[in-house]
Amino acid sequence: MTQGKGIQIVLAARPRGKVTPDDFRLEEFALPEPGPGEFLMKVDYLSLDPYMRGRMDDRKSYAEPRKIGEVMPGETISTIIASNHPEFLKGDVVLAHSGWRTHAFSRGEGVRRVAASALPVTTQLGVLGMPGFTAYAGMKGIGKPARGETVVVAAASGPVGSLVGQMARIADARAVGIAGGSEKCAYLKDELQFDAAVDRRSADFPAVLAAACPQGIDVYFENVGGAVWQAVLPLLNQFARVPVSGLVAQYDGPGLTEAGDHLAATMRQILTQRLLVRGFINYDFAKEYYADFLRDVPKWIAEGRVKYREDIIDGLENAPQAFIGMLAGKNFGKLLVRVDVGK
Amino acid sequence: MTQGKGIQIVLAARPRGKVTPDDFRLEEFALPEPGPGEFLMKVDYLSLDPYMRGRMDDRKSYAEPRKIGEVMPGETISTIIASNHPEFLKGDVVLAHSGWRTHAFSRGEGVRRVAASALPVTTQLGVLGMPGFTAYAGMKGIGKPARGETVVVAAASGPVGSLVGQMARIADARAVGIAGGSEKCAYLKDELQFDAAVDRRSADFPAVLAAACPQGIDVYFENVGGAVWQAVLPLLNQFARVPVSGLVAQYDGPGLTEAGDHLAATMRQILTQRLLVRGFINYDFAKEYYADFLRDVPKWIAEGRVKYREDIIDGLENAPQAFIGMLAGKNFGKLLVRVDVGK
Repeated sequence: MTQGKGIQIVLAARPRGKVTPDDFRLEEFALPEPGPGEFLMKVDYLSLDPYMRGRMDDRKSYAEPRKIGEVMPGETISTIIASNHPEFLKGDVVLAHSGWRTHAFSRGEGVRRVAASALPVTTQLGVLGMPGFTAYAGMKGIGKPARGETVVVAAASGPVGSLVGQMARIADARAVGIAGGSEKCAYLKDELQFDAAVDRRSADFPAVLAAACPQGIDVYFENVGGAVWQAVLPLLNQFARVPVSGLVAQYDGPGLTEAGDHLAATMRQILTQRLLVRGFINYDFAKEYYADFLRDVPKWIAEGRVKYREDIIDGLENAPQAFIGMLAGKNFGKLLVRVDVGK
Repeated sequence: MTQGKGIQIVLAARPRGKVTPDDFRLEEFALPEPGPGEFLMKVDYLSLDPYMRGRMDDRKSYAEPRKIGEVMPGETISTIIASNHPEFLKGDVVLAHSGWRTHAFSRGEGVRRVAASALPVTTQLGVLGMPGFTAYAGMKGIGKPARGETVVVAAASGPVGSLVGQMARIADARAVGIAGGSEKCAYLKDELQFDAAVDRRSADFPAVLAAACPQGIDVYFENVGGAVWQAVLPLLNQFARVPVSGLVAQYDGPGLTEAGDHLAATMRQILTQRLLVRGFINYDFAKEYYADFLRDVPKWIAEGRVKYREDIIDGLENAPQAFIGMLAGKNFGKLLVRVDVGK
């Protein structure tokens, strides 16, 4: 305990366009002993993920928006430090939706013990956690790449994109990753064995992407939207599949600089190329694929066929800036905050 | 034979926006005796369908565009009047892709004999033909309405929309049809037993549509696009399915009067509501569903559960005006041209 006080970060204001540090506020809160049936956790690691941007807006989505003054949501790895709960005991390491805070009370809802693994516990928030399963579910349930097909993914050095591309390779498909900057592109090709990497900052990005996809695109795993979608659209082959798991480029606005309505062109391509475009949240596919995911991905990691990369920031107070950077693509790998910096 | 001359209608110019009569030209062509292995048909009925608009543009689609000076494409019911073909004989009544013409030569490619049926031969171009199978394939392969769900379709008094709505009813789903004008809306409710009919010309169309869908929309069969899609989008429920079979409202342009980019809103709804949006052409589903279609629809017609309506125009020379009218929603039922007006 930190002298009987915890720290949390709340939503101070709804962003107007881009998120700014002023949209967050750091608060202290009291840490009494847990009540009957309750336990108290200290947070070790907080996961920062693009979906959190959506929760800051006051719009209907698959989850309720945060209210002003509420703690920012987020999944964490936490350690139970005091417990009056019959099953969750002091010393247990758990996954919990405790949000952006140093400590959290719980009665066990949505909390589960971290399974023993040879891999670092942080992977439970990345390649073996929600981002990993998002990639796995989208590829198994919707993308379904066949041998020799071309799979394109943006934010490809991130936790979702990197597994998407590596799963494409495992399916003997061509993996084309889009990332920002030469360092990330080199990582995609040299470390992750993508067939091609395209820098989204290239002067003529659409032409560079087209050149990297000489046979067109059969699966586009959509997690950014905006200008990347515009470049992908004319390259999509007949019967291409587009799992839509995120739209980070348009969370702050339409994400396009060119004027005019781009909807008609998208609908026309959906019709004439007979595209399948399907939005999903990872847990939509839990029943069908979660057990397979838990079996396949650790095996692929052990075999060296799947690699992952983490980008760990120290200190909860740095979460807002890290989150803002992530929305601009500044992280390199799965972004985590080490909340208990004594660790 | 018409004194050894046939008449055909060719693409004279590519439309700029709306199609005009000047985009077509009527031509005579010679009718010699069929060569070896050939046969000659006289066209009885020509089907006019919205997809033909796409063929007039010089843009990549699922089929090659017509060249300037080429005959307008179209499926017909024709009678063989002279034959040197071993299998297609004089007097046979066939379905053929002979295009907008009074007569056509063929070696049998894509031609098939019309099966015996208690129903008028014209149904082979409508409820039992391509439009009917488009509705059937889209509903069976993509829409998949469940009992109690709400199905919405536009151009609902047309050959595709009317079967979509009646299939919704057969699946114990709520059928909501959109059509232009009170006469068509009355037909949907009184004749076709739709649960609700919405006039797309209503002053506040989005609000009227919303009122007709108190439980939201689970299946939207997209055949128009434009303003109807904008009204449907906010009403779509989680996991709604959107078979996309046509976009007639945007064939001449984006089809929207409001300024701004509508793509971001569509993509966001696809993501957050986890929509399935899938373009298709009826024959994509032939292997899976064509035999079922041939079994189900005649049975439904015999049982009175499916009704159909035809709108028959006399004379090939009137095809351009009828086609232009259809694109504006002026037909009432499956639009056909009786080419051999002597019949």
